[in-house]
Amino acid sequence: MKILLLGATGTIGAAVAAHLSDHDVVAVGKTRGAYQADLDNYDSLEALFQKVGKVDAVISTAGDIVFGPLDTLTEADFAHVVTNKLLGNMNLYRIARPYIHEGGSFTVTTGVVSREPMPGAALVAAVNGGLESFAMTAATETGRALRVNAVSPRFVNETMEAMGMDSTSGISAADTAKAYRHAVLSDVSGQILDVRDFL
Amino acid sequence: MKILLLGATGTIGAAVAAHLSDHDVVAVGKTRGAYQADLDNYDSLEALFQKVGKVDAVISTAGDIVFGPLDTLTEADFAHVVTNKLLGNMNLYRIARPYIHEGGSFTVTTGVVSREPMPGAALVAAVNGGLESFAMTAATETGRALRVNAVSPRFVNETMEAMGMDSTSGISAADTAKAYRHAVLSDVSGQILDVRDFL
Repeated sequence: MKILLLGATGTIGAAVAAHLSDHDVVAVGKTRGAYQADLDNYDSLEALFQKVGKVDAVISTAGDIVFGPLDTLTEADFAHVVTNKLLGNMNLYRIARPYIHEGGSFTVTTGVVSREPMPGAALVAAVNGGLESFAMTAATETGRALRVNAVSPRFVNETMEAMGMDSTSGISAADTAKAYRHAVLSDVSGQILDVRDFL
Repeated sequence: MKILLLGATGTIGAAVAAHLSDHDVVAVGKTRGAYQADLDNYDSLEALFQKVGKVDAVISTAGDIVFGPLDTLTEADFAHVVTNKLLGNMNLYRIARPYIHEGGSFTVTTGVVSREPMPGAALVAAVNGGLESFAMTAATETGRALRVNAVSPRFVNETMEAMGMDSTSGISAADTAKAYRHAVLSDVSGQILDVRDFL
């Protein structure tokens, strides 16, 4: 199976690539990877598919987020995160559709804070909640011809450790990757896949 | 109670103003109303509060949406709806906060399609789902000092009739307005208020 993976050089993306290494994973990064594309740059997304051609699945672990209380986040933070992660991944879906083989799948990444509110996560919750409603709804238009799902990671151990946080409540990137494999290889559609259900 | 109402000249907004007419409702429209402000124009939102001053509650029924299958919606539709309804209302919240009296409330408008997927509603679901996650999460930062809620209307009779649709499954604007009154006058916070629960 040929799988296009955006965000392939990130913490979760690299783990997803490793977990799907029995398939032909085409790694896309913003500046690294086999191909480059930027969610902020519509033309770069179109150019990506023109170069890569048809695939069986698209996975996006890409999208910038900024945590912080609403007292400290700026107008620019809001504009960037909404444009990059939410609008960018919806544009990716629209551009990707004709390049995904019949019966293929599109999987986007959200996150637990959209449904489990916590201080400092309002902007992240907004884009993740938006993408979840988008994936659920987009799936109703395509039936089995194109499955659309969101994987909702918990906090990732490696990310928490990199930020100097206690990671005992987190889930490893390798374990997080299992939900993406399920999204690609099973027949689910219109679902929000909580990574805890695939450990 | 002094209540600032954005979207006051729309179908739902006008009904909310009527239903809260025992209070001092300050009507704001994009081009009509006592004051003008535009969710696309950050400066116009700041200027609005500088003119109006402190209030007890802010309600927004404003925000452009575009229904349509993903085959027909354009890049411009996505950019506009995400910027106007999602980013615009989040900017409104951030700007409004210091102007809302202690114990006041902020209420934003979403819609049933964020949680009940249907074809043709993916873009609308995305912005509504985003605003719902935002309201739930923003509320965790403010406690009782500022209550934040989303009202989730069903399809509104008057709107359906204006579009030539069968409105038997809809709810009138006047009935829809009841959920907004609850959001302002009760003590709920961090909630998504389904208008069906307030008929």
